[in-house]
Amino acid sequence: MSDTYSYLGPSGTFTEAALAQVPEAQGQEWRSVNNVGEALDDVVSGRSVAAMIAIENSIEGGVTATLDALARTPGLRIVGEYLVRVSFVLVARPGTTLEDVRVVGAHPVAYAQCRQWLDANLPTHGHIPATSNVAAALDLFATDHADAALAPPAIVRHHDLVVLAEDVTDNANSVTRFVLVSRSTRMPEPTGADKTSLIVELPDDRPGALLEMLEQFSTRGVNLSLLQSRPIGDALGRYRFVVDADGHVRDERVADALLGLRRFSPRITFLGSYPRADRAPVEYVSRYDDGVFVEARDWLRGLISGEPDVPESL
Amino acid sequence: MSDTYSYLGPSGTFTEAALAQVPEAQGQEWRSVNNVGEALDDVVSGRSVAAMIAIENSIEGGVTATLDALARTPGLRIVGEYLVRVSFVLVARPGTTLEDVRVVGAHPVAYAQCRQWLDANLPTHGHIPATSNVAAALDLFATDHADAALAPPAIVRHHDLVVLAEDVTDNANSVTRFVLVSRSTRMPEPTGADKTSLIVELPDDRPGALLEMLEQFSTRGVNLSLLQSRPIGDALGRYRFVVDADGHVRDERVADALLGLRRFSPRITFLGSYPRADRAPVEYVSRYDDGVFVEARDWLRGLISGEPDVPESL
Amino acid sequence: MSDTYSYLGPSGTFTEAALAQVPEAQGQEWRSVNNVGEALDDVVSGRSVAAMIAIENSIEGGVTATLDALARTPGLRIVGEYLVRVSFVLVARPGTTLEDVRVVGAHPVAYAQCRQWLDANLPTHGHIPATSNVAAALDLFATDHADAALAPPAIVRHHDLVVLAEDVTDNANSVTRFVLVSRSTRMPEPTGADKTSLIVELPDDRPGALLEMLEQFSTRGVNLSLLQSRPIGDALGRYRFVVDADGHVRDERVADALLGLRRFSPRITFLGSYPRADRAPVEYVSRYDDGVFVEARDWLRGLISGEPDVPESL
Amino acid sequence: MSDTYSYLGPSGTFTEAALAQVPEAQGQEWRSVNNVGEALDDVVSGRSVAAMIAIENSIEGGVTATLDALARTPGLRIVGEYLVRVSFVLVARPGTTLEDVRVVGAHPVAYAQCRQWLDANLPTHGHIPATSNVAAALDLFATDHADAALAPPAIVRHHDLVVLAEDVTDNANSVTRFVLVSRSTRMPEPTGADKTSLIVELPDDRPGALLEMLEQFSTRGVNLSLLQSRPIGDALGRYRFVVDADGHVRDERVADALLGLRRFSPRITFLGSYPRADRAPVEYVSRYDDGVFVEARDWLRGLISGEPDVPESL
Repeated sequence: MSDTYSYLGPSGTFTEAALAQVPEAQGQEWRSVNNVGEALDDVVSGRSVAAMIAIENSIEGGVTATLDALARTPGLRIVGEYLVRVSFVLVARPGTTLEDVRVVGAHPVAYAQCRQWLDANLPTHGHIPATSNVAAALDLFATDHADAALAPPAIVRHHDLVVLAEDVTDNANSVTRFVLVSRSTRMPEPTGADKTSLIVELPDDRPGALLEMLEQFSTRGVNLSLLQSRPIGDALGRYRFVVDADGHVRDERVADALLGLRRFSPRITFLGSYPRADRAPVEYVSRYDDGVFVEARDWLRGLISGEPDVPESL
Repeated sequence: MSDTYSYLGPSGTFTEAALAQVPEAQGQEWRSVNNVGEALDDVVSGRSVAAMIAIENSIEGGVTATLDALARTPGLRIVGEYLVRVSFVLVARPGTTLEDVRVVGAHPVAYAQCRQWLDANLPTHGHIPATSNVAAALDLFATDHADAALAPPAIVRHHDLVVLAEDVTDNANSVTRFVLVSRSTRMPEPTGADKTSLIVELPDDRPGALLEMLEQFSTRGVNLSLLQSRPIGDALGRYRFVVDADGHVRDERVADALLGLRRFSPRITFLGSYPRADRAPVEYVSRYDDGVFVEARDWLRGLISGEPDVPESL
Repeated sequence: MSDTYSYLGPSGTFTEAALAQVPEAQGQEWRSVNNVGEALDDVVSGRSVAAMIAIENSIEGGVTATLDALARTPGLRIVGEYLVRVSFVLVARPGTTLEDVRVVGAHPVAYAQCRQWLDANLPTHGHIPATSNVAAALDLFATDHADAALAPPAIVRHHDLVVLAEDVTDNANSVTRFVLVSRSTRMPEPTGADKTSLIVELPDDRPGALLEMLEQFSTRGVNLSLLQSRPIGDALGRYRFVVDADGHVRDERVADALLGLRRFSPRITFLGSYPRADRAPVEYVSRYDDGVFVEARDWLRGLISGEPDVPESL
Repeated sequence: MSDTYSYLGPSGTFTEAALAQVPEAQGQEWRSVNNVGEALDDVVSGRSVAAMIAIENSIEGGVTATLDALARTPGLRIVGEYLVRVSFVLVARPGTTLEDVRVVGAHPVAYAQCRQWLDANLPTHGHIPATSNVAAALDLFATDHADAALAPPAIVRHHDLVVLAEDVTDNANSVTRFVLVSRSTRMPEPTGADKTSLIVELPDDRPGALLEMLEQFSTRGVNLSLLQSRPIGDALGRYRFVVDADGHVRDERVADALLGLRRFSPRITFLGSYPRADRAPVEYVSRYDDGVFVEARDWLRGLISGEPDVPESL
């Protein structure tokens, strides 16, 4: 029996392109869903073994729906990370020219990423929001509200559309980061190029709590590649933080930082340790090596058990 | 000649309710615009003296379009802050009942704020995104894509709609924070209950930069009420931070923190010092009093000019 | 066979008064030695089971000879702490009056502690340094260099001397702190009112090392009651630090601080955990309770072993 | 009329060698005094224009008598720093050989610096403390308590003594640091290779005060070359700190650190800014340049006075 993987569909989305990077997903069943909540529900219910979801893009930052869904849904683990270069084409029904375009259908994030190009090339255009990048294109067949749509390049492989303009994205380096989420608590092995994701709710009874949270990482030589605040939702000004830390929980310095964090705030969710998409080895100074942690523990254990303390060099 | 104030319209929006709290705006011309960019353009071009824009809400956090627009548009200043309690009604064309509703039109933020209610009461509903809370309701007359819409309660004063459900908001404490933005560089006077808004781009050449930024505030006893990361947009993982600090730039401790920040990162935008909406006096420990700063300056000036140093108590 | 205890003698010294506070030493052999080095040699060689030595006084600070001897002598442990109120009498050979006194013999520390009294009452006096408080008095019989001597009050129980003035100490609160040192690596049990002594050599390859050392304690809620710099001796500006931390190494927060310290600088000497002389319970905030440390370790162990993470409240 | 300079005499001391390095003192009157207190009294009373005093040596650390005298005597300023290599000779009355030596006279600090040599070459020697290095030698003529004395090499130029051993100092790099102290509040000009000396009493009403004091320097990129704790003297565990910071008070980063310190603790004594003895230029990272401080002040002044804020690059 085959495994099922959920992704934000339909065919042609960037999420599908991310899923195509997963070797284990090849030849399995891919289930197209409508939003992040549905994707995570598939995983929680066991309908799918994993779901691919967008978590950060270089224009819009953390994908808030994803971050909030991860914070609300217990029992999930990130098991992999994938990058997809984001580039849009402007498509229309056959017979349409760029001059004909009055109204553009686009997912709000796509619209934000192409806004400068649209302002320059279609200065009087209107915008109709769509629920996904592909939906914007499909709506061209269902209604006549929009004359053109922003869509991923793969769209033309699936539908009869003409491309009015290619690579309309404002920023040539635009990239979206996706994560593969499952229920499994078996963690990917450390590779030396790993990332650990957490959600931390700050204790609210003292000032300077964020500073103190960051010190849990800095005092162990652990760098952060993502720090995103998200409102908890119960009152203005109450936030939780989504954190990506360099390294694997089985790296001593990361484990020690997690111990410190947990003591600092029991309201912490561990989202997983997994290989970085870019496979770039984590850099850290040698005083935070695993061996240094192990040696210190041995020393302390010796002290407490009554062995004589032989200082290294005093 | 009257002054013009821009706001996200049309009539009936929460933004209009925020503008209604501004004494100087009474009896002046109010200009309804379609989005934040347009509102700020009005201010930059001089078409309006000020614009009211939403900046943070208790469910969705910082309003990203606003934060990014403020970061991109030089020469603006926040001159006032206003809170509006957010509560939605579910409205429909006359003759519709709750049982008839299949598809709900709603601005994505409104939709997020009422999602639990909708899932409980309309478990099979679909969602069509709208460009604003009022647009969702008006679309009911223009098209038949949606059967009902989430809208501010004031909508029924302006349009012929029936209310299918009141107060559908999931969180009874939901509040949106608005700011009034102008070009004026004349700052509101300090009131003792002030807030200072900044956008800071972290220097990218060293680790621990965020920690160091926060220390600029903590070492002067200045608390932050907002810290929101926003991608700069040029590469994944590059962020700027939107910061609300307690106090006025003419408070010594805030001024000193700004000096430290500017030295730390010249890429800083001062968005203004202005009275807090809740008029709650800023609390801080007495060692950060203005007098302490003045005394230290006098002491140092004396030292450098050659006056003898008479220690307080050594 | 009886145990031997070494102390800075001869009979009548404050060190003897400290040793008199040790229940186990009662009825044992007490060995009078001439200086700290000799006392520690007795312990290292096994000639004595323990030695009482002065470590800090409220006028002169850390007793440098003691601190340096502890840093140089491996294998020692502090097993107890004792306080003795310091008060001097001015003594002379029978027949001498205060008016006759031209030259005062005194150990340099005693001299410093009585300097103001001497300046006020014997404004033209000279000073001859002695090797100990008691030696100053005994020298009155051996030579005629001095006319009077500063000595502990107990001196008159042992020698035929007249008291010219009582309680000549400048500061009525003057106290000296003594420690009992042994070779035993069996630590006193935690009492809730303990102290842990360490010698730490800062790594010399980075600035801000002292700040970083202090953070090892502050981030675990451990207060320091002593921090004394002592030159390492190899070059100007190279220092080691003698540290007294509140708590016992078997308190989780202290153990964790020691782990951090050892990782930070392998050049650390553990001098022992032992009950405080004043029996004052160590105060610390509840977030540094042992239970918090244990819970965090259990949580992390669960994560790594593959148990699902059930967050406390997210 | 000539100026008078006080120094710890008599002729031949290391202090005299330090004074010989002062160009302005050449051809003036040099006044030999018996201790640091007397030297500072000369300056306070106006009897001398300046006094040379030892402040730190590489074996004994900060010279406590000096540090305490500076803390107690208001109105003094350090105007220069001088280094003298410390090397002792063992001298005796003519006719004495090394084999004859039973008792060695020595100032306690000198004794500590030569202890290993003495233990190796005169294992059974006794020690008689002297009030100064030269006094130890002169006592050889006055009494027969000691058979030999540790003295500075210059001693043989002034007195009829034989040298039993040269360079007996244990550490070949032993150096003593001296400072020239005056009443003048006219500071030496900045040279780029300066030092600033301070005495700071920590506020006693909060934990972590030392950490906070150190942060005043580290957050402005100012390094410390000396940090020495000294008991205040009123109770066990109450300390003040003697600090040498790199740079001149007219360097912006040092001035700003002093402002922060003064706000943190009004109980601060400024001892002066003066050229370093080693003339080594102060190193600091460019973000703490004077220009960065000036630019930040100009920016803030512009903001407060109502100039538009033109961000550097946002």
